[in-house]
Amino acid sequence: MAAHHNVVGPPVHVDQRKMMSKVFVSIGLSLDGYMAPEGMALEHWQTPDYKNWGAKWGALMSWIFNQQYFRDNLKLGPGGETGPVNDLIRRTTERIGANIMGKRMFEQGEISWPEDAPFHTPVYVLTHDKREPWIRPGGTTFYFVNDGPERALELARQAAGHRDIRISGGADAIQQYLNQGVVEELQIALAPVLFCGGRRLFENLREGVSTFRIDGILESPTATHLRYVRE
Amino acid sequence: MAAHHNVVGPPVHVDQRKMMSKVFVSIGLSLDGYMAPEGMALEHWQTPDYKNWGAKWGALMSWIFNQQYFRDNLKLGPGGETGPVNDLIRRTTERIGANIMGKRMFEQGEISWPEDAPFHTPVYVLTHDKREPWIRPGGTTFYFVNDGPERALELARQAAGHRDIRISGGADAIQQYLNQGVVEELQIALAPVLFCGGRRLFENLREGVSTFRIDGILESPTATHLRYVRE
Repeated sequence: MAAHHNVVGPPVHVDQRKMMSKVFVSIGLSLDGYMAPEGMALEHWQTPDYKNWGAKWGALMSWIFNQQYFRDNLKLGPGGETGPVNDLIRRTTERIGANIMGKRMFEQGEISWPEDAPFHTPVYVLTHDKREPWIRPGGTTFYFVNDGPERALELARQAAGHRDIRISGGADAIQQYLNQGVVEELQIALAPVLFCGGRRLFENLREGVSTFRIDGILESPTATHLRYVRE
Repeated sequence: MAAHHNVVGPPVHVDQRKMMSKVFVSIGLSLDGYMAPEGMALEHWQTPDYKNWGAKWGALMSWIFNQQYFRDNLKLGPGGETGPVNDLIRRTTERIGANIMGKRMFEQGEISWPEDAPFHTPVYVLTHDKREPWIRPGGTTFYFVNDGPERALELARQAAGHRDIRISGGADAIQQYLNQGVVEELQIALAPVLFCGGRRLFENLREGVSTFRIDGILESPTATHLRYVRE
């Protein structure tokens, strides 16, 4: 049947464009531009008092902790807010067909996430470690990719199907994909906190990297949700 | 007459609080946290192609160039937009009783501002240079303060009267006042541009500097206007 006879949806050429996975980033950022405070590292994971990293991280992410969808996903118990911020978290989570993350983020998560890790998709970990896929209950499988970020993105595209690919973090991984010009959307929860040090998101970017435009803003008392799309 | 007999305004103790000058910052910021792109320095002032600083600066400030109040103030000719962004610029400008700026910002401005410099208040310049006050037409007088930022703030407070004190820039000056904990409001026009290098606003901040809360947001296509007040 010719494309224009397809009465159950838009013409096929539009359909195919819609079916392309988008590559996006969705992260919390301190007002001074940090994704993580100083001291938030594997070797201090059990001592959140170290440089006060635990409290700082908590302040950065305070916007999310009481949202129903987030609480449910991390098995933090029932209840929670169900307004527009919750809807944003839900939409962001549900659009993800595959995650990509750096080795450090994985290692920190490995000891923090519940048994039923909160991704529920394939997760491609950029690492030099050779390791068999690690299958978690609830649909999260971690694949360890030794052939660089391009290869990880290729695998993520294959796995994601019609859904999108999230570059989950950390800063290094996001910077690599930004520098390759493949990041199509940036979603930033800008929290009104000053870390005065730590791991910056926007650093090591090459000149002439993609340009973005403002796509939408959602206000909340604990973070400003900024959305940018690549032009 | 006792305060509560004052029928033309609120009681005197409220009045006095209102009369205290606020110290605030109002600046343009790139999405990656820079106030100025690399190459934007006095020695390259006549060559805006150098590291493309002119185009980058233009992109950062594009939100302001076509606003009526700004155009009028800089004598760029008639016309311009008159919506909420214009109102914001007007309110911000009209509340200022004194400006404080760093030496570098002054030196750059000295060769760029029109004869009738766009401040129309006393301006206290932090510098080691000894120099007589420089009086411009239109009410701008530059005073050169050699005794440090505290002294400049003292002088600005005396000059500002009921109005507020703007720490105009550059980054160094703002950082000094942030580190002293005296900045009560931050107004940031966050433009969706990536500079990939330059002069960062949030840097060299001491641990435990003031905490801020989100006070208001004004959306526009070319910049997101974020307002924070000290808690």
